[in-house]
Amino acid sequence: MLSKYTTGFFFDRIRSMKEKTVFERIIEGSIPCYKVYEDENVLAFLSKGQQTKGHTLVVPKKHSRNILDIEEVDLLRVIAVVRKLSVHIYKTLGATGLKIQQNNEPRGGQEVFHTHFHIIPRYEDDAIYTTGKNVELSHDELTTLAKKIYLKP
Amino acid sequence: MLSKYTTGFFFDRIRSMKEKTVFERIIEGSIPCYKVYEDENVLAFLSKGQQTKGHTLVVPKKHSRNILDIEEVDLLRVIAVVRKLSVHIYKTLGATGLKIQQNNEPRGGQEVFHTHFHIIPRYEDDAIYTTGKNVELSHDELTTLAKKIYLKP
Repeated sequence: MLSKYTTGFFFDRIRSMKEKTVFERIIEGSIPCYKVYEDENVLAFLSKGQQTKGHTLVVPKKHSRNILDIEEVDLLRVIAVVRKLSVHIYKTLGATGLKIQQNNEPRGGQEVFHTHFHIIPRYEDDAIYTTGKNVELSHDELTTLAKKIYLKP
Repeated sequence: MLSKYTTGFFFDRIRSMKEKTVFERIIEGSIPCYKVYEDENVLAFLSKGQQTKGHTLVVPKKHSRNILDIEEVDLLRVIAVVRKLSVHIYKTLGATGLKIQQNNEPRGGQEVFHTHFHIIPRYEDDAIYTTGKNVELSHDELTTLAKKIYLKP
């Protein structure tokens, strides 16, 4: 028979496993990613759905749900990386425009409940406004792309 | 006959007048706005085109073109205000979602070449994804709205 402590611990474990988002699993390394940047506090990786080639997500390692509950210090660290990566991705991939997006709550388009910024480079021939269709890239193409735009802190 | 100095000054004035964006004119006070927030370094006001009710722009007072050339310190100041205003607008207007957008270069959707962040609250009954149609608000409604969500620094 489980003690009260053990039971509590057991259900705490279950809850924490259930509640972890895919980005927390990427941060802890239990799910792989196409990493583009990492430092002590911030991680960036290619978005699974590439709205355009080089579509990158930048996340704080410390968990927050979104901009409505993130602490200021964590947000400042993330946006500093968004800036550096935007310049780097823009130049490296020869983009002619670039969008930054950050979605909050399901009605705001948020699908993963761990704060993240989208960096979406734009190109003359992209199609994200006309059809919204993603670029289809293979595992190898994604790997090469991530290496190409990887930035050391 | 104009001296070299005078001529230079004259053309500098012409160029600076021509190159000033509408947001710089709003910052200097020569064009009015529906102000939502202001401190020493940052100004926020309702977007002329309201994608949804409460659609707000947050700008650094110091000029930069966009995220590709803004200095880090200016970006940090702006995003700190974006965070505070997002929470405030979300609660104040009873939004159920919220989008942050920042567009760079014409291909990235940028229309005014002074760095700015969009705060776009979302509601259950908004229509920005289905038709993209703006909410039509009168001068009085805009004035009331700006007052309602005004946040003191």
